[in-house]
Parts: sequence; C-alpha cells; structure tokens
Amino acid sequence: MRIAVLGGTGREGRGLATRWAVAGHEVVIGSRDAARAEEAAREIADAVAEAARTAGPAHAGTALAGAANEEAARRADVVVLALPFEGLADTLAAARAAIGGRVVISAVVPMSFVDKRPVMRAVTEGSAAQAAAAALPEARVAAAFQTVDARVLADLGRTLDEDVPVATDSDEARAVAFDLCRTVGLRPIDAGPLAQAAYVEAVTPLLVGINRANRTHAGVRFTGLG
Amino acid sequence: MRIAVLGGTGREGRGLATRWAVAGHEVVIGSRDAARAEEAAREIADAVAEAARTAGPAHAGTALAGAANEEAARRADVVVLALPFEGLADTLAAARAAIGGRVVISAVVPMSFVDKRPVMRAVTEGSAAQAAAAALPEARVAAAFQTVDARVLADLGRTLDEDVPVATDSDEARAVAFDLCRTVGLRPIDAGPLAQAAYVEAVTPLLVGINRANRTHAGVRFTGLG
Repeated sequence: MRIAVLGGTGREGRGLATRWAVAGHEVVIGSRDAARAEEAAREIADAVAEAARTAGPAHAGTALAGAANEEAARRADVVVLALPFEGLADTLAAARAAIGGRVVISAVVPMSFVDKRPVMRAVTEGSAAQAAAAALPEARVAAAFQTVDARVLADLGRTLDEDVPVATDSDEARAVAFDLCRTVGLRPIDAGPLAQAAYVEAVTPLLVGINRANRTHAGVRFTGLG
Repeated sequence: MRIAVLGGTGREGRGLATRWAVAGHEVVIGSRDAARAEEAAREIADAVAEAARTAGPAHAGTALAGAANEEAARRADVVVLALPFEGLADTLAAARAAIGGRVVISAVVPMSFVDKRPVMRAVTEGSAAQAAAAALPEARVAAAFQTVDARVLADLGRTLDEDVPVATDSDEARAVAFDLCRTVGLRPIDAGPLAQAAYVEAVTPLLVGINRANRTHAGVRFTGLG
C-alpha cells in the first residue's frame, strides 16, 4: 500500500512512517515544504536501514520519498493526516483536489497546551476528524492512531502492544485503518461512527496526564474484546 | 472502610456497592428517597449472600444499609458519587454540610444521549468532578470509576481485569481511590490533577461506541505502566 503521511516531518508522522516503511509499505512524506519532506524521508530511510542491519526483519529497500503535501497525496493510495490541528484547514483546502476520493486517516488531535496543561480545543464539527471530513467531502475519513505515542513508534525495538480505536462511517476507510494497524502489530478496535472521533481524540490528553504522573509513554488497550 | 454511595440505587452505584460489600467493606446506599435506598441495600445484600453461597470468598455478613443521601454521607468515611449529572448540583447543595471535609470520589459522567448517540455535556467547571469540587469546597475530590461497566461490576463471577484512571489534586483522595480500586481487583492509574477529569470522564462515551460496535462491555487498560 502506498501511504502519504501529511505532516510527516512531525514526530507522530515520522513515527508512523517509520513503522510502515519497516513493514514494507511505500511511504511518501508530505510537508508544506518539499525539501523538508525529502530530508525527513532520507532520515527515516536511514533509521529503517539501521533497523534492518541490527534487527533483521526490516525492509531496508523500502521506497521512501518526500514531496509537497499535494504531490504526496496524489502519489498515494491512502492519505494519513499527522498535522497539527492549527494547520489542518489550510492544508486540506490546498490538497482537496489531490486527495479526491481517497481514504483519509486522521491522526490529528485538537489539543494545545495552556499553562503547560493539555487542553482540547472546541471544534465546530465536533472533532478534528470530522473537520477533515467536512473539508474533504469526496474523501472517506477515519479517525485513528492519535493514541500511539510518537516515542514508542520511533523505538523500533519496542513491540506495539496497544490498541487503536478507529471511528469512521466508511467501511473502506475502516478496512484500510485496520490494515495499517495490523501491519505494524497494533490491534485495531471498531469505535463506531465518525461522530465518536471526539472521544478517540480525547484519549490523547488523558495519556499526557498519565505519562506525566507516571513518567512513562502510555498507550491504551480495551478489555472485553476477546 | 465505611463507604457511602450516593445514587447507589442506579446501576453503576449498585455495581460498585456490590463489589465493595463482597470485599468486606461497610456500604451505605444513599438516595433522595430513603425507602428506595433501603430496598436497594436489601437487594444488594441478597446478591452478596448468594455470591457467598455459590462462590465462597464473599462476605455474607457485610453490613449494608440504605439511607437518605445526607444521612448516608454522615455515616461514612468516604463518599462516592454515582449520580446522574442532572441531579448532581441539587444533591451536593443539600449534602454539603453532611459531606464536610470527607474524601469524595466522583464516578459521575456528564453524558446524555441525543438521537441515541452519547454526547458529552459542556460543564462550566470543566468536568463533573470539578463541578463536585466546586460544590463541596471543604471536600477532597477525586474522579474515578467512570470507565467500569455496571454490568461487569454486577457479574460477580467476572474478574475485574481493567484499569481505573484517577484524577485528583489531593494525595488523600488519591490514596482512598487507589484502595477502593485494589480492594476489588482493579488497577488504579494516577491520571494527574483534577483538571484532567474531563478526559477521564470522556472515556465513557468512547466505551459506549466500542460496546455498540462490538456487542461487548469493554473496559480500559493502559500500557507502559509495568
């Protein structure tokens, strides 16, 4: 699967891109600045090659490229949004035609820090993922991956033993999001319709609080799912 | 520990009260209507006695009583709020003097259903637990237990294999909440200050979505905590 990661120069996008590249997917890093995207792609390729040398199963030859967001979206089968919420509206307005009817996975969290405390922004559409869906009426949008810590993703020696709640109204977007979880060892959990995305996104500030209180990088799992 | 469960005639309060009674704590069920509280206490005592007969380790002789909310609070060492958010302000205004400086554990979720979908209410104070803290300035308040499904609590044959995030500014309230978790087999997780309570409370509508999509009664666990 060819995956564009818009905002792939940020920590969360980089971590996801690295894991997917190691799993053998073609990944195109997208950024407003094509040169920065190309640089991030080279750095990720180096990390993947290093992991292949030391650990074995990684795909050292994986195709990693960088491009401006619109070009990255055009080249991909699926578009992952790993942008800060602040840049979301502008980026999607510019990339709407390039994204078209593709499956879009939003990992965006509308969180900011006020006096160092995590605070969720009120989003008119209800959540960042619903804002993305409103900005991309042709696309099929799912919310996923908000809860997976960037540092855990970057630590390739660490098994991803957590769950990923997925909220979407689209069966195809759900299937793609589930594949993108399973290919890196994450367990996807159907969290219901896209209207539930706000509650998926709100897990991130909860984890920030848990991380601070316990000096850890926590993830989430759900019981009662066999 | 003597535990008052205000709103103990509801499903969540009943489930918590049952588990604590089985663990050997004295529990006073509180309700606006003392007669209803007494009836619930009798029903819970029957369930506990039945569990003791069939499973063994339950405390059949556990003291269970019912009383009006204020009287229940007065008799207890710790006050657990298991009320609907709608009744919270009135109940706490009436019970403030009775609750005094006690530790208060809020299991309240400011959730309602609109077109059958779970919707979180905007709470001026930020969360139900913070609203309780504002209404009870002498008390030491922690948010906890929102995420434990009432049906899982009621099923005494089922091990509670989930975590309970606890948000509070009070070391004493945290210690009591942690004890109330561990005594029934739940793992308490420090989720940081009371200002994080909104994110603890928001896990409940996430679980509602997961339950519906997967026909289960899910709970939450956190990875990265040893």
